[in-house]
Amino acid sequence: MTVNRIRLEDPLADGRQSLTAQMVWRGTARLLRQMGFASVGELTLASGRRADLAALGPKGDLWIIEVKSSLADFRSDHKWPDYRDFCDRFFFASHAGVPQEVFPQEAGLILSDGYFAEILREAPEHRLAGARRKAVTLRFAQAAAHRLHDALDPDGRADLSGY
Amino acid sequence: MTVNRIRLEDPLADGRQSLTAQMVWRGTARLLRQMGFASVGELTLASGRRADLAALGPKGDLWIIEVKSSLADFRSDHKWPDYRDFCDRFFFASHAGVPQEVFPQEAGLILSDGYFAEILREAPEHRLAGARRKAVTLRFAQAAAHRLHDALDPDGRADLSGY
Repeated sequence: MTVNRIRLEDPLADGRQSLTAQMVWRGTARLLRQMGFASVGELTLASGRRADLAALGPKGDLWIIEVKSSLADFRSDHKWPDYRDFCDRFFFASHAGVPQEVFPQEAGLILSDGYFAEILREAPEHRLAGARRKAVTLRFAQAAAHRLHDALDPDGRADLSGY
Repeated sequence: MTVNRIRLEDPLADGRQSLTAQMVWRGTARLLRQMGFASVGELTLASGRRADLAALGPKGDLWIIEVKSSLADFRSDHKWPDYRDFCDRFFFASHAGVPQEVFPQEAGLILSDGYFAEILREAPEHRLAGARRKAVTLRFAQAAAHRLHDALDPDGRADLSGY
């Protein structure tokens, strides 16, 4: 019986990466908040890919930020340009332990110390068309509200899974 | 010194009302979720008024639901028509202890038993114009994401209040 087994691709690597990634995530999300952006982690896009961090600005601007916790993490990602189809600006976010020069000049770069973050390089803007913007915004809003709802009403979550 | 005092308009009434209101809210939010709508409570609108429950549908439909926990609660609300300017459909949500006939026919009516809910009367549709829809959706998304962020990073919340 494998139905109830916890699935981990690589438990050790995943665990270590997650802690660093979470620190980068935390500092980056705080920076975004200060800039007036709301953010949600792990937003699944229409392409099926998940954005590490999606941010929605005060005027509706959509940014996607990919968190890179290590050099290996960055090198294994060959699909980051695809994210541009779903945002107005694309950034990498990392920490001081990863050489900055590996990150492509065509993407923005955010450096986080785990507590806060700063934008080292602005990202070029490629404005989304109206229909795509509406779809990504809706996805963002639904994901954030559903997760909040699950947190506020965990019993409801169990009920709902039965429908 | 009154700075740190907890402010309650009417502690007893508020407490009793809140519990019932929360039960109505919970069942209603579960129903909405089953219908594919994400919901957030206490959404402040551009008018300054707060919607008890705002819901965002799978195609971007915006509903506002005012929770009425008692007859007095309903009778003290003279401004509910104003909510129509901010949604595609407007509903009241209540429970079996409040006579259904008091609720106006021009608004939808949801009956909750605290665990789930049903729509007793559909609400008429009055579609929002594009700019207003965009603004309310953005407000919804930002509120949900900010609250989720506060829950995930409570330390950040304290930090942010200092900026």
